[in-house]
Amino acid sequence: MTIADIAREAGLSIGSVSYALNNKPGVSEDTRARVITIAKRMGWSVSPAARSLSRSRADSIGLVPVRSPRMLGVEPFFMEFVAGIQAVLTRNEMALSFLLADSVEAEIRIYERWASQRRVDGLILLDLAIDDPRIAVVERLEIPAVYLSNAPDDPGQPHVWTCEDESMREAAQYLIRLGHRRIARVGGVPSYRHIAVRHRTLEEVAAAAGLPRPTVIDTDFSGEAGARATRSLLSRPEPPTAIIYDNDVMAVAGLGVAAELGFSVPGELSLLAWDDSPLCEITHPPLSAMHRDVLALGTVSTSLLLQLIDSEGGVEGVEGPRAVLQPRGTTGRPTRS
Amino acid sequence: MTIADIAREAGLSIGSVSYALNNKPGVSEDTRARVITIAKRMGWSVSPAARSLSRSRADSIGLVPVRSPRMLGVEPFFMEFVAGIQAVLTRNEMALSFLLADSVEAEIRIYERWASQRRVDGLILLDLAIDDPRIAVVERLEIPAVYLSNAPDDPGQPHVWTCEDESMREAAQYLIRLGHRRIARVGGVPSYRHIAVRHRTLEEVAAAAGLPRPTVIDTDFSGEAGARATRSLLSRPEPPTAIIYDNDVMAVAGLGVAAELGFSVPGELSLLAWDDSPLCEITHPPLSAMHRDVLALGTVSTSLLLQLIDSEGGVEGVEGPRAVLQPRGTTGRPTRS
Repeated sequence: MTIADIAREAGLSIGSVSYALNNKPGVSEDTRARVITIAKRMGWSVSPAARSLSRSRADSIGLVPVRSPRMLGVEPFFMEFVAGIQAVLTRNEMALSFLLADSVEAEIRIYERWASQRRVDGLILLDLAIDDPRIAVVERLEIPAVYLSNAPDDPGQPHVWTCEDESMREAAQYLIRLGHRRIARVGGVPSYRHIAVRHRTLEEVAAAAGLPRPTVIDTDFSGEAGARATRSLLSRPEPPTAIIYDNDVMAVAGLGVAAELGFSVPGELSLLAWDDSPLCEITHPPLSAMHRDVLALGTVSTSLLLQLIDSEGGVEGVEGPRAVLQPRGTTGRPTRS
Repeated sequence: MTIADIAREAGLSIGSVSYALNNKPGVSEDTRARVITIAKRMGWSVSPAARSLSRSRADSIGLVPVRSPRMLGVEPFFMEFVAGIQAVLTRNEMALSFLLADSVEAEIRIYERWASQRRVDGLILLDLAIDDPRIAVVERLEIPAVYLSNAPDDPGQPHVWTCEDESMREAAQYLIRLGHRRIARVGGVPSYRHIAVRHRTLEEVAAAAGLPRPTVIDTDFSGEAGARATRSLLSRPEPPTAIIYDNDVMAVAGLGVAAELGFSVPGELSLLAWDDSPLCEITHPPLSAMHRDVLALGTVSTSLLLQLIDSEGGVEGVEGPRAVLQPRGTTGRPTRS
């Protein structure tokens, strides 16, 4: 079967079919989709190596976090992750195309535009959601993509996974061992898979230890939301003796609220941040945190993506560095019960 | 005079001269420099519009901050600035090429590589230094560039300037009005022009008010260095009653050190951060800060750069938003003298 056969079947010129199959500008997205459907039905396939030879390389990869500018600004995760990406890109004389999106829909529109402009050779996708629409989009656009995920058996393309459940188990069991029985959680966006795993694991560990069900307040990861959630938790008749936060900025805000409401830390209240950062080391007392090598996570993800871009398939996911407990000054034995 | 005349004079092919004058790969940097010298001597000039027609656009601009990954991660300035850049780029269907460098030399190497690959249409340069070597480099590479600066009369290319001296005057006079006489400063990298202006202005205002010369400790902007500097200042026989910090992260660290050493804030010690961020709002008490619309600074800089890329000259610098006082909970009248 040749490209001429597909062209005849589709009622299009050979040129248009070539543009469509090679993901080049010159045909509409509808036509492209129709040609691909016809070609697949006719049993067409092309090796990635052959395709990459026919393509001009953009020598750039894309990263499009869905975050508001101000929130991105205070969350150290992103810049450390970007730094890890760049360590690998610089060695390969490649660049990072970096854009913020205000929604997943906007993120997808950027990928479609980039695909038609051939601006990137691959993508790193963050914050994999339950039933994530982006998986189908990058497959349709045929852009190599690597996901950050939290289990080796997540679906779709190769991904870098970290064991969020093991990390949460370590965090919760440490607080239980210290003597805490009322543990609360100030959580991130609950539709993100890694956040859902943390949620489920904390409930499991608490149940196994015979503790009351942990109170959880969901947030958008912002410091403001973290402060509000902490104020709400500490104003209850039976406030928790320990709070786990889903990022560092909310934990810093929680520490401020504890001071405001007169809770001594860690005597009357233990606080544990997730994803350590230099921010956790400059508070008073310094914040205990689940420490993860975010820079290495960026490096590993980018290396996997470059492998995927150059490969003819057969690339497998790899485990990234998982968060481990870094106790500092905000966790201790509770002086109230 | 034609390109053939220059080729004859230089003893090169017409093709090589064309590559050299159009800043395309294919000739060595030495040859390029020699051709440009000869062409200029012969009175050659080409309008930017004609040149831009002969060039293919990269539809991308470049930003290369010299910062360590971990430091970039905690300083909210960068992500907000990047968000402002992207607001303009997205409207113009352009992308941002974003890389970190560990030195100005590395930054320059990246610009040279990008110029030879035609990867960017323009650059935004941060942290203009005294005798900054990058000015000559971007002129030689003929990449349109916009600088962030702190005075309308800074040399070289068009720049976005903010009046750092007016901002520092406002900050210092406010503290003096509150009754402070021993004002210290935890400063950023002293070779940066905007940092030098703040330094000089604080000394001038203190002298005019008959105050002792302010103690200044220079840092690398990191939270750790901010904590160390604050510990040093507060351990002196006559500690300052007010400290001005050159960023938000160092002020957060300073607040932690004040708690550690038992200084009540703001009674025994006033703290003032520079460049406000959500970080300043989540501490306890919330940090008074010099607030600047960093997002707008990114927007203004990018608009100026796009104007410069499309122009045939005649683009002038513009004033960006300057930092203004945002008093919160960490500044007040001193209870000790």
